[in-house]
Amino acid sequence: MQSLLIAKAFTLMEPGPVVLVTTNDGHKDNVMTISWTMVLDFSASFAITTGPWNHSYAALTKTKECVIAIPTVDLIDTVVGVGTCSGKDIDKFEKFRLARVKAKYVRAPLIEECLANIECRVVDIIERHSIIVLEGIAATFDRSRKEIKTIHAVGDGTFVVDGRIIDRKEMMRSKLPSGI
Amino acid sequence: MQSLLIAKAFTLMEPGPVVLVTTNDGHKDNVMTISWTMVLDFSASFAITTGPWNHSYAALTKTKECVIAIPTVDLIDTVVGVGTCSGKDIDKFEKFRLARVKAKYVRAPLIEECLANIECRVVDIIERHSIIVLEGIAATFDRSRKEIKTIHAVGDGTFVVDGRIIDRKEMMRSKLPSGI
Repeated sequence: MQSLLIAKAFTLMEPGPVVLVTTNDGHKDNVMTISWTMVLDFSASFAITTGPWNHSYAALTKTKECVIAIPTVDLIDTVVGVGTCSGKDIDKFEKFRLARVKAKYVRAPLIEECLANIECRVVDIIERHSIIVLEGIAATFDRSRKEIKTIHAVGDGTFVVDGRIIDRKEMMRSKLPSGI
Repeated sequence: MQSLLIAKAFTLMEPGPVVLVTTNDGHKDNVMTISWTMVLDFSASFAITTGPWNHSYAALTKTKECVIAIPTVDLIDTVVGVGTCSGKDIDKFEKFRLARVKAKYVRAPLIEECLANIECRVVDIIERHSIIVLEGIAATFDRSRKEIKTIHAVGDGTFVVDGRIIDRKEMMRSKLPSGI
C-alpha cells in the first residue's frame, strides 16, 4: 500500500465500483458493502446513501469517520458476504478474514486486501434522503496488486466487472483538473 | 424503445454508467454529460451532482424536469463531445445528431440512440453540495439494441467499458426487492 494523492481519490470512485466502508464505534470495527455512492467534486468529496437499517450507521454518525475501501473482482464473494450479514451479530473482519491496517487519521481500519483505501470524515448528514457527505483526507493505493478490475453492482444480484479502457484524455483536456 | 417498469430503473443507474441528461427550458432542448450520479432507494430516486457551471442547470431547476438517458460504448465520442461543449452556444442535438423522442410526462426529450431513458422530476435541490434529487416517473429500454455495454468515466479522461457479468443472485436473494 502506497499513499495516493488525495486529489486523485475521486478517480477511484467516479467509475462507480461497489465499495466496502469500515467504521469503528470506539470498541469494535465493522464493515459494510455500499454500492450507492457519488463523487461531489474534484477535491475529495463523496456522498454515500445509508441509514439506520445498516448497523454501521450508528458508528458512522457517532464518530463521523470511516474508510472507503475499494475491492477488486477477486473479492466478489467477500463483497456479497459482507453485504448480506450484520456486524450486529458477528465480527465481519474475522468471518471474511480481512486484514486490518491502521489508518493515518481515523480509527476505522484500512483493508489490506483492497486495491485502495480512502480515509474519510463525515462532513454532513442529509437525513431526509439518507445521504452522508464525506471528505476524503488521505488515500492509499496498492501498486503491487495484479488484479485491478473493480466490480459494479447492478442491483439485481449481478455484478459487472471492469472491461477494456478507452482513452479520451486529449478530447477532455479542457475539462480535467490539473495534475489528474 | 419499450417501456420498462419504473421499479427496475435503479438497476440502470446502480452500476455507475456515465449518463446524458436532457432538459427543455420551454424553448430549447439541451443535453449534458453527467458522471456523478447515485441511487437513493429501490423505488426510483436518484441524486446527481451539478450546478450553475452547467448551462442545463437553469432549465433543470426552473422546470424541475429532465430525462436521464443511458448511452452505450458506441456513443463514447458523443458522450465526450456533449460533455465538452455548452448548450449556451450550440444545439447539441443537431451537432451530435441525436434523435429526440417525445417523453410521456416531461418536456425534456428521450434520446433514441440510448439504451434506456428515465423521465424524472426534480424533488429536491441541496445547494450546499450541488446535489439534485430526482424521482424517476417512467422509463424505456431498447431491447432491440445489440450493443448494451455502458461506459464508466474514471475522471482522468479515460473510460472503463462494461466487462463480464458475475451472477450472485442466489447469495443476495434476501437483500433484493421483490420482482427485481
